[in-house]
Amino acid sequence: MITVGNITGQYQVDIADSTSIRALFQAVGTVDAIVSTAGRVHFGTLTEMTEDQFKIGIQHKLLGQINLAMIGHAFVSDGGSITLTGGILDRNPIRYGVNATTVNCALNGFTVAAATELPRGIRINTVSATVLTESMPDYGPYFIGFEPAPAARVALAYARSVDGVQTGPVYKVW
Amino acid sequence: MITVGNITGQYQVDIADSTSIRALFQAVGTVDAIVSTAGRVHFGTLTEMTEDQFKIGIQHKLLGQINLAMIGHAFVSDGGSITLTGGILDRNPIRYGVNATTVNCALNGFTVAAATELPRGIRINTVSATVLTESMPDYGPYFIGFEPAPAARVALAYARSVDGVQTGPVYKVW
Repeated sequence: MITVGNITGQYQVDIADSTSIRALFQAVGTVDAIVSTAGRVHFGTLTEMTEDQFKIGIQHKLLGQINLAMIGHAFVSDGGSITLTGGILDRNPIRYGVNATTVNCALNGFTVAAATELPRGIRINTVSATVLTESMPDYGPYFIGFEPAPAARVALAYARSVDGVQTGPVYKVW
Repeated sequence: MITVGNITGQYQVDIADSTSIRALFQAVGTVDAIVSTAGRVHFGTLTEMTEDQFKIGIQHKLLGQINLAMIGHAFVSDGGSITLTGGILDRNPIRYGVNATTVNCALNGFTVAAATELPRGIRINTVSATVLTESMPDYGPYFIGFEPAPAARVALAYARSVDGVQTGPVYKVW
């Protein structure tokens, strides 16, 4: 397993910059699976949101992960997989969450469509999880009434995506 | 009714440029409803698509219409409405359609979330229609097996959105 982070991990990448993504794959080479849990979004009220704030989620979580798939699939082995991260806000809007809901829905759509096109038996799925139990100290006030899930439980969905046979589905953990 | 187009209509706007959208509303002033049928997307295969090509749909059909809502709602009367345009590719991917599917899903998500936030009783809906009968000479080869709908029938969904009472739903015409 090769770990990649923005500032941590064995390799670093700026998901919002396709040049950085390309450099990452040129350094790492071929892999059997790509798993992305990356992606910033902007939390705030719609009526006060600027275009630049809305673009944070678009450029990071959405286009970042789409570029990861568009650039990265050439570095995935035959029959390998790509797993992206959406989230529960795709179907459950919350206060301050319009940017996240938009981006998560877009990722679900990208996954379904990209699954019909990826070559060499490469699969693609997206994991849409509820808020993590471990994140509740930070995010709890935004997710009142939501049932959190421990990271270890959410990790099962990523394992199912990597080890499974389906391409296109959004794996919900909620 | 005030008609606005890129090059036609009583007023012109470049939907991909928020400065142009802002100038439009400053010229037009307050309206009872905004109906958008704007938005370019890129048609092409995923494996050959560049980041710039993917951004065509993001900047035009997605952010263009989102900016229209984010800027425009301040110019909509109390109890008025905003109607955006998605499309059938949200749930039905086609060859060359990954950019459109991604953007249409994002618009559906934006609509559901924005509906929870718009002030003064302003409603927002998105119309998701099948291919128009009138567009079949151009788009027919991409939509084999799809049942087209005449523009006059699709127009009913826009009328329902403007005259109706719901906020948030995606009105499907297929």
